[in-house]
Amino acid sequence: MCAIRLTQTVQKGGCAAKVAATELRRILERVRFPARHPELLVDGSTFDDAAIYRVSPELALVQTIDFFTPIVDDPYTFGRVAACNALSDVYAMGGRPVTAMAVLAFPLASFESETVAAILQGASDMIAEAGANFVGGHSIDDDTLKFGLSVTGYVHPDRVWSNQGARAGDRLILTKPIGTGTLMARLKYGEGGETGIPGVREAIESMATLNNVVDLLSPGLLGAVHAATDITGFGLSGHAWQMARASGTSFRFGMDRVPVFEGARVSIEEEFLTKAHRTNREYTAAALEDATLAPWQKTLIHDPQTSGGLLLSVAPEAAAELVAAIRPRFSRAEVVGEVVASEGTTCIFFDRNLPGTPHEL
Amino acid sequence: MCAIRLTQTVQKGGCAAKVAATELRRILERVRFPARHPELLVDGSTFDDAAIYRVSPELALVQTIDFFTPIVDDPYTFGRVAACNALSDVYAMGGRPVTAMAVLAFPLASFESETVAAILQGASDMIAEAGANFVGGHSIDDDTLKFGLSVTGYVHPDRVWSNQGARAGDRLILTKPIGTGTLMARLKYGEGGETGIPGVREAIESMATLNNVVDLLSPGLLGAVHAATDITGFGLSGHAWQMARASGTSFRFGMDRVPVFEGARVSIEEEFLTKAHRTNREYTAAALEDATLAPWQKTLIHDPQTSGGLLLSVAPEAAAELVAAIRPRFSRAEVVGEVVASEGTTCIFFDRNLPGTPHEL
Repeated sequence: MCAIRLTQTVQKGGCAAKVAATELRRILERVRFPARHPELLVDGSTFDDAAIYRVSPELALVQTIDFFTPIVDDPYTFGRVAACNALSDVYAMGGRPVTAMAVLAFPLASFESETVAAILQGASDMIAEAGANFVGGHSIDDDTLKFGLSVTGYVHPDRVWSNQGARAGDRLILTKPIGTGTLMARLKYGEGGETGIPGVREAIESMATLNNVVDLLSPGLLGAVHAATDITGFGLSGHAWQMARASGTSFRFGMDRVPVFEGARVSIEEEFLTKAHRTNREYTAAALEDATLAPWQKTLIHDPQTSGGLLLSVAPEAAAELVAAIRPRFSRAEVVGEVVASEGTTCIFFDRNLPGTPHEL
Repeated sequence: MCAIRLTQTVQKGGCAAKVAATELRRILERVRFPARHPELLVDGSTFDDAAIYRVSPELALVQTIDFFTPIVDDPYTFGRVAACNALSDVYAMGGRPVTAMAVLAFPLASFESETVAAILQGASDMIAEAGANFVGGHSIDDDTLKFGLSVTGYVHPDRVWSNQGARAGDRLILTKPIGTGTLMARLKYGEGGETGIPGVREAIESMATLNNVVDLLSPGLLGAVHAATDITGFGLSGHAWQMARASGTSFRFGMDRVPVFEGARVSIEEEFLTKAHRTNREYTAAALEDATLAPWQKTLIHDPQTSGGLLLSVAPEAAAELVAAIRPRFSRAEVVGEVVASEGTTCIFFDRNLPGTPHEL
């Protein structure tokens, strides 16, 4: 379809290129932000989650922005993935996307207009599937391709999913497998291409799937979701830690339950890694308990995801029903862990197995 | 304040780096966008103006995104200018900014965190002055610094200023002088720096001034504004042409009335130009009448502005009062031309003088 292999045009791909959380915190600590409006229900000033801004007692805006360098070679697919990744933050807050604007940077001299059009087409198609409107954007002549969206969604102010509501006893549900970071590194630096590397096609299809869980849930199941986040550049470990800490709890995962893309283990063992694998480990080091894991699993939990799944903290009695309700769209969704009391210090425990059978969870 | 001269870190600065309108059109023509929502009152799919999305009969969202590479050396000032430039689109639609998210790309390895923090501080201070909230953003490790904002504002759906409402007989009011494109090129490539080049300081201060005209106008004056746009990368010529065409009218400017930064003429005559000077000329060539202008004026009208002024199309009887009302904040605001019937073809006439005295206009 396109002579250029997009991933060969950039140094760092996808969410692996984003600025690490610790570095970002060091910057933001220096900025004196003024007092926030009372309408700002959830602050996005960590630069990662969506913000929630109340318009009226019945309506709040969910606002988020996300963009990155290509992690796949086909421009139409890259547009789909970038759009799903950006729209995901709205879904992670329990909202529904309404408008989207493009963030587009590309080398004007070397890119065919059909390549750029294919990226926009991919995004437009996913925005339409999400029921939102593509309302414009901004484009800039730049050395390396970057693309993403600034998205606004609607949510009822009383029905926002934040990362603060997880309760001890909740089950943790992950909607998509993990491993896109190492697989996309192998796609870029290794041999075999999209068709030759096991798991790459599945991972790309997963990244191009909207995290639209909301529309699959009955009102009862919606109410059973106590907290949510989406798994992106900080990996399962980083995002779990943020959510556990925000909720004043600890999280315990059973790695035998965590869905993993085929090929991710081999790819990690062959050391197709990114800087984020290291920075995510550093970011979570103080809270992490992973002694029982196999070596590759100790890396996998830090794998930076692009357009990864949602991590939902759900009332235990509703967990099985919720997984069943979302399986038609998220075939590999699983209960992967549980929320436990923090006893003063937030920890994220990763074990090979969890006590109790899958059925009990 | 900062060892790095920001403008020396990039190839192209400010709005001069944006993708030219003709190239953008060629790309967008290839994309099949789905039908737009009925709530989308103004489509931003030209990738330049703000979009207007109706929330209720009393409230619509103004949405816009803008970012660019540095056009000044001081990071705090760059943050102010970039924020003003992005917030301007909301003001150009008659709205008031409510939330803003950062678009941030910078070379992690070579930039001090205090440099990045200063950029964010500059933006935060302007967002606060605009009465809006800084609600988050996205940052990415990238070779060259880029910064800007995605902004959402509020406007009453019946009181939107679009670029479509100019009427024959209206007066055209420009709120800020032009010439930032050539002056910033001279700052980057020439000698003298911010203090040594005449007009540079004034231009920077102008770029760091919010286009907040709305708050200065009485309800009567607000109603006298028939159309508006902000002058940015496509220059006075390009944005005037877009507005004239959208309104089905022609525009006539008197260059003796157009405010120009000190030093801009010399800077043009010494050929401190950007690619946009040429592409803006090409963009408007079919509609342009400039035979009476001096050579430097023929270039100045295409000068790409960063955080330029608003161009307002105003009922003739209210023009003088409106200029007087905004002068406290925009000391060089002027009536610079008039709207004339198009007689079938939209033209933008640039003359040295307009018929009639300034008083008559």
